[in-house]
Amino acid sequence: MSRFVYVNGRFLRRNDAYIDIEDRGFQFGDSVYEVIFVTKGCLVDEQGHIDRLAYSMGELGMELPKSPATISLLIRELIRLNGLTDGLVYMQVSRGIAPRDHLIPRNLSQTFVMNTRQVDLTAKPSINEGVDVITVRDIRWGRCDIKTTQLLANCLVKSEAIHAGADEAWMVDENNFVTEGSSSNAWIITDDQVLVTRPPTHDILNGITRQTIIDIAMQNNVVFEERAFSPEEAKNAAEAFFTSATSLATPVLSIDGVKIGGGVIGPITKILQDQYLRYAQQTSL
Amino acid sequence: MSRFVYVNGRFLRRNDAYIDIEDRGFQFGDSVYEVIFVTKGCLVDEQGHIDRLAYSMGELGMELPKSPATISLLIRELIRLNGLTDGLVYMQVSRGIAPRDHLIPRNLSQTFVMNTRQVDLTAKPSINEGVDVITVRDIRWGRCDIKTTQLLANCLVKSEAIHAGADEAWMVDENNFVTEGSSSNAWIITDDQVLVTRPPTHDILNGITRQTIIDIAMQNNVVFEERAFSPEEAKNAAEAFFTSATSLATPVLSIDGVKIGGGVIGPITKILQDQYLRYAQQTSL
Repeated sequence: MSRFVYVNGRFLRRNDAYIDIEDRGFQFGDSVYEVIFVTKGCLVDEQGHIDRLAYSMGELGMELPKSPATISLLIRELIRLNGLTDGLVYMQVSRGIAPRDHLIPRNLSQTFVMNTRQVDLTAKPSINEGVDVITVRDIRWGRCDIKTTQLLANCLVKSEAIHAGADEAWMVDENNFVTEGSSSNAWIITDDQVLVTRPPTHDILNGITRQTIIDIAMQNNVVFEERAFSPEEAKNAAEAFFTSATSLATPVLSIDGVKIGGGVIGPITKILQDQYLRYAQQTSL
Repeated sequence: MSRFVYVNGRFLRRNDAYIDIEDRGFQFGDSVYEVIFVTKGCLVDEQGHIDRLAYSMGELGMELPKSPATISLLIRELIRLNGLTDGLVYMQVSRGIAPRDHLIPRNLSQTFVMNTRQVDLTAKPSINEGVDVITVRDIRWGRCDIKTTQLLANCLVKSEAIHAGADEAWMVDENNFVTEGSSSNAWIITDDQVLVTRPPTHDILNGITRQTIIDIAMQNNVVFEERAFSPEEAKNAAEAFFTSATSLATPVLSIDGVKIGGGVIGPITKILQDQYLRYAQQTSL
């Protein structure tokens, strides 16, 4: 846990940081968030995350709590105060405090919280050794493109995966297509070496790491197709992996117990992983 | 706003009451709630609300924060401290505080918050004069039977209704059947005087007021049918209304601009309203 956190204009010691009991983030899930990956002192895809925060807020009729430039400065000051070198920055903005009412109040003073966590994500065994995935029914709401804190379904399926001895759950929609993981985007590589991931609609979060991986694939002449795929296609794929700011590109060794690519990390997955990490560590803090 | 609130074993002055920034209710929507109607010193359907709180928590792998008897006593002490005679009691329980992780931690110390609001709900113009309703697409998650604080979709459609000059939004599923209102259950009375409301599945919250209204209808020999109905059937209904702990039984005068029963409060709606209020004011505090 970080020593300092940022709450509404102030850098506070962690244990002095609270939010109100009538915060709409607490009472209604009326709140959005971002997680930014930090590696060897580099803040990865910061602009993309701030842009998406603005997108999420815009879809809910809110504006960024500060200008992007000010948010950048506040992130850097929190990183400095906590001596963060590797880990993540967590940012959450709720609509603010108001007497409880479903009717969304206008012009509230938002609650803006930032926290950091020191952890070397690149050393995670899951990323280096790969993991097992289960598939589960996607029961989330219709606007998964908005990064809200309404994450209970995600928490339930993540926990289901862990209790089943796996590491991540891929959610499947009513048409039998994979939407995404509990906190990551899902990818496969077909037998003829085509990289496939689902297009960004209201059904999935358009991951910032997802977008960077697409760019890296292009640069490395990997053939890329943006389309939905079924759990069955995934189980027959040559390779599979998932991406997010905290899982980077994590190889998938099996899906529902079916080994993918013989149960070892695939070559294209490895290239994308390595290139992503190289990209990440080139950004300067 | 009440002078005192209850937070985790203590009765605090409202302005001294906070929750932690890493409360899972704030970060994940990992939290459930109840609202209990209080009228003329009577606490209405208290046992039903505590039972449903236990149901919601059970579905999420949690247990009540205190025994039902202790919760009853805490509610009464908060009512006494605030001198509440008419209004509502709001209770919220989150899974508790933990370093942010989608994996649901076991054995956390829950966050239990209670608040009251003094307001004579029986005097609301909406209840006495009726309101207009619009229909909107239901985009909520697949477990609406659990009373979680993931209420953003509900807030958005409630706001859409208000901005459209109406008072409530009835949500419609992908099969073109009404699920429920943004914070109420939906009812119609057909031309041949049959009372209709949707059965309680994962698609709706099984309202405590809904269950009481069914009992009252039975006692008053109203023919009752538990089935889904379409917006079109509702617009052609003889009467329509919606129920909840804070809207009691609120008559619907129009749906999407189409007048219901000539745009006046229907006779069966009026009987159910009156009988409900009589029932409510018989419970002793």
